[in-house]
Amino acid sequence: MHYKLAFIGFGNVARSLALLLERKRAALKEKYNITYSVTGISTGRHGFAVNPDGLDVQKAMDLKNITPLSTLDVKDSLDVIRHSQADVMFENSPVNTQTGQPALDHIRAALELGMHAITANKGPVVHGYRELTKLAESKGRKFRFESAVLGGAPVFSVFREAFPLAELSSIKGIFNATTNIILSRMENGESYENAVKFCQSIGVAETDPANDVDGWDAAIKVAALVTVLMDTPMTPQQVNPTGIRGITPEMIAKAKAEGKRYKLVCSAEKAEGKVNASVAPELVDSSSPLYGMMNSNTGVALRTDVILDYSITQSEREGMRGGPEETAYGLFADFVNAVKLDSNVS
Amino acid sequence: MHYKLAFIGFGNVARSLALLLERKRAALKEKYNITYSVTGISTGRHGFAVNPDGLDVQKAMDLKNITPLSTLDVKDSLDVIRHSQADVMFENSPVNTQTGQPALDHIRAALELGMHAITANKGPVVHGYRELTKLAESKGRKFRFESAVLGGAPVFSVFREAFPLAELSSIKGIFNATTNIILSRMENGESYENAVKFCQSIGVAETDPANDVDGWDAAIKVAALVTVLMDTPMTPQQVNPTGIRGITPEMIAKAKAEGKRYKLVCSAEKAEGKVNASVAPELVDSSSPLYGMMNSNTGVALRTDVILDYSITQSEREGMRGGPEETAYGLFADFVNAVKLDSNVS
Repeated sequence: MHYKLAFIGFGNVARSLALLLERKRAALKEKYNITYSVTGISTGRHGFAVNPDGLDVQKAMDLKNITPLSTLDVKDSLDVIRHSQADVMFENSPVNTQTGQPALDHIRAALELGMHAITANKGPVVHGYRELTKLAESKGRKFRFESAVLGGAPVFSVFREAFPLAELSSIKGIFNATTNIILSRMENGESYENAVKFCQSIGVAETDPANDVDGWDAAIKVAALVTVLMDTPMTPQQVNPTGIRGITPEMIAKAKAEGKRYKLVCSAEKAEGKVNASVAPELVDSSSPLYGMMNSNTGVALRTDVILDYSITQSEREGMRGGPEETAYGLFADFVNAVKLDSNVS
Repeated sequence: MHYKLAFIGFGNVARSLALLLERKRAALKEKYNITYSVTGISTGRHGFAVNPDGLDVQKAMDLKNITPLSTLDVKDSLDVIRHSQADVMFENSPVNTQTGQPALDHIRAALELGMHAITANKGPVVHGYRELTKLAESKGRKFRFESAVLGGAPVFSVFREAFPLAELSSIKGIFNATTNIILSRMENGESYENAVKFCQSIGVAETDPANDVDGWDAAIKVAALVTVLMDTPMTPQQVNPTGIRGITPEMIAKAKAEGKRYKLVCSAEKAEGKVNASVAPELVDSSSPLYGMMNSNTGVALRTDVILDYSITQSEREGMRGGPEETAYGLFADFVNAVKLDSNVS
């Protein structure tokens, strides 16, 4: 089976994906009998290219502007999707958590044209999960987004494949690395301000760390998990997060003396069809699966009717978590899992 | 799609599975359009029954001897398999870790007849994985065993579904609950002897605890994981385990004072096609994902070329871990995952 691929957005994650696909080319062929070519690329600032016979991806990565590679006249991402004749569209345009655009439109267009649509973007998950899933089903295609939450720690595919017909009653986790690093470093005596600076220096926090420290990044991840795994649409606003600015060194020292620690705990509980979700600092002790998640480690604990407590942790060296390579692997896994169903190979 | 099921072995796990199937009957129909009937049951001491039109499972659970339920003359498990006309065979006969029998013969027979074969038994995984997988493939059927290791914490399906084409280089975990409870209780000052007695009192350790405390239970689990996930046949003898009898209260107190603790660590490393596996007590500190696994908690950390460190933990109340309900759910998940491919529903 040969698959034509379109890359909408061609930043670090998409480029890592292109390299990973190349590295796994022989294995794809050997294990799944999958071959591929890239037939469309849309970049943010370096032009657009379509060639239904296949583009030279290495050249596209080297060029300042990729337009000369194109055999067709294309002017925007929707043009690329329409003319690429792709079977699979990877959506990696910039995230907009408020509206999910332009990713929503790209995914709609791809699914309408009968492509599988795969993204690492939380926006369209929170803003379009039900609509896009329904559209995908009606076309016999897949809308997949493994890397949208906990990039590098598969949770959507794990729940889908390892927990058939399980009823999820509780999600509890640490979803934001920046705040977890800050709290870990404060436990070792560093000031809040210096811990924030450290996070900025290793590239995990932005110049304005509000999105992390006020809990909004965690809240959109909670909203995405609830929307998908609990099949209950939820927005970050409904999660209404509390961040970590109120946690003082004194509070942390007192907790430590009692064998406890503060974590920015994300949680969602489903009971009688209703979901209560929150993001807030909580004291946890060593009996909690969250207690051992320090620094950039993140993870999630799931409680179901069939398996009581199952937790997934991603434990990595600082600064490496959620790197583009791991996010790219989530997209790659989504691709393999979507197309292996076409050829009915398990 | 209607599936006929045969139960070979009808102890606690198989009975839990029968109850779980009944509880999920409506959901199976609604989500996957799957219906089922039980057409064969083989018990250890209460007879055999086959009825290709369906047996009354509730009656089979209530009866002292199920032979009167049979519409055919059957005398042993192989007869039940042959005459049940089943599509799926659940193998739950007593475990023999030395030879894998009689489970191996049951699974061979079922696959030869074109059934999916599903077991929670480590024996046939260690002694027959390659042969049975090949046989299953040649018949277009599945040989599945999610509950054989870490029952209640899916690891085989997680690796199969969420890690396509990942190269696994390291497995590290705590696979034996009994020794973990003993070490946890010794850390709280209890003697080895009393900790063993406690484990016996809650039913997790046998009268002779040797299989657990000398590391053999952990070793066969390592062998099964290496055999399947690293595609390298391995026996428990090759793992050559060291148990926990050599760990003294003094050693544990000294470790605790240094912020460390002893764990019976299971590990396997693959490099250049060669696997080194071991089971032995090791000192771990709080940076290890194993540090927080106390009492009956078990788990495994996987390192791959695409996702660096991913760990799965099962954290439960004492005495509940690996109960028959959770083992049964692994068999149930194997069933759904095997047959959903028949109908090509994802």
